[in-house]
Amino acid sequence: MNYHAIVSYDGAKFFGWQRQPNCWTVQEAFEKALLELDGRNVAATASGRTDAGVHAVGQSVSFEIARQIDERGLALALNAHLPDGISVIKVKEASADFNARFNAKSREYKYFIWHSSTIYPHMRGRVCWLKGSGYDWSKAQEAAKLLLGSHDFRNFCHFEQTEGKKERNTVRTVLKSRLQKRGNLLIYSIEADGFLYNMVRIIVGNLEQVALGRIAPNEILDLLDSEKNRSQGGRTFSPEGLYFWRAKY
Amino acid sequence: MNYHAIVSYDGAKFFGWQRQPNCWTVQEAFEKALLELDGRNVAATASGRTDAGVHAVGQSVSFEIARQIDERGLALALNAHLPDGISVIKVKEASADFNARFNAKSREYKYFIWHSSTIYPHMRGRVCWLKGSGYDWSKAQEAAKLLLGSHDFRNFCHFEQTEGKKERNTVRTVLKSRLQKRGNLLIYSIEADGFLYNMVRIIVGNLEQVALGRIAPNEILDLLDSEKNRSQGGRTFSPEGLYFWRAKY
Repeated sequence: MNYHAIVSYDGAKFFGWQRQPNCWTVQEAFEKALLELDGRNVAATASGRTDAGVHAVGQSVSFEIARQIDERGLALALNAHLPDGISVIKVKEASADFNARFNAKSREYKYFIWHSSTIYPHMRGRVCWLKGSGYDWSKAQEAAKLLLGSHDFRNFCHFEQTEGKKERNTVRTVLKSRLQKRGNLLIYSIEADGFLYNMVRIIVGNLEQVALGRIAPNEILDLLDSEKNRSQGGRTFSPEGLYFWRAKY
Repeated sequence: MNYHAIVSYDGAKFFGWQRQPNCWTVQEAFEKALLELDGRNVAATASGRTDAGVHAVGQSVSFEIARQIDERGLALALNAHLPDGISVIKVKEASADFNARFNAKSREYKYFIWHSSTIYPHMRGRVCWLKGSGYDWSKAQEAAKLLLGSHDFRNFCHFEQTEGKKERNTVRTVLKSRLQKRGNLLIYSIEADGFLYNMVRIIVGNLEQVALGRIAPNEILDLLDSEKNRSQGGRTFSPEGLYFWRAKY
């Protein structure tokens, strides 16, 4: 039977989603739980591979097991086998050809920034803590909106060293790009058909440059279109503020 | 100079506020930071002593140091000396006779319950996780309101073993007592002129009994007034869902 699980994890405890030698990853932990449950090796596919340190609230994971278990029972059984830091929130039966990666129409990430000279200890590791002054976030809000639509994000990604090759197609279509400010908390939400390596964290770095007045809001599009490489843009924000929010099918 | 600091801490990392032999407490950590800063022993007084494991969002702490430091600079300096798990959110200069404990007009606590068969790993240790079914929270909401006003809470506290004596006056005046439900999250807020040992956690235990239909909403007052001891009431909820929210002066 093929299943679709909604999975949440604490990024600080894993070296990202994808299995890697000598690193403890979410995929390995999840497939280990499936092995214990089903008695054989089962592959788990995520809608989007998250990098080391990145959290998930609603990652979609598909897998096929020999046994048929009711949805609620399967969620409980998986949680009993999963380590601290990963939780299955929900499990749904899926059609035989459902694949969490290839069937996803869009993915959404949220990036949380706490902008204040002081922070509540309960937030540590859950948000990116930004001190300092001179930020005009309304300018960054303007710039965020300009990312809507299809753009070539070649300049807004790091190419994965492990693969040693450039991604062929670096055009992505952005369906939502919104920066909200609620007191000291900034929430950047972005939904797109897909994401390049480190793309969200680099976008947030460029939004910071806009907020600091180092580039004008509409210059964010120039950065995208230019032949310059992205080392001339902002920094890559830390993974601790980034959450894979959900995939849509 | 006398100061009033707003302090937040992660209860899981400390054995409560008050100094104790062989236990790492918030007061000891705070006074250690004051010693490093002021070069002499300085007593720190909290508006309310929290028990082991209980969090604080806005604990009020008063202390007097020899040096006069501007408010913002003092907050930064204290944070530089404080360990992980405690943060000073704000510091204000206070009048010479200000005492965070004796001048407080009221204190507010909030208790967070996550009621669901599954939990996000980011919530672990931050809320009380309640599974199971058969809860009618609207009944507990009714009961919560009945606690408003002055009552003798003798039956809703544990007497501190360390002191080996009963508190003389166990009447407290409740200014706010409200249970809110937002999806799977329940938030119980209570403001009173003062609290007895474990009082909030015992109230939540009795609200649970009401939600489960084991006692009727108005029977919560009978439990208060009865001569029965509280072992006939509900359980004492865990400290991980409890936050000292703020004191009013």
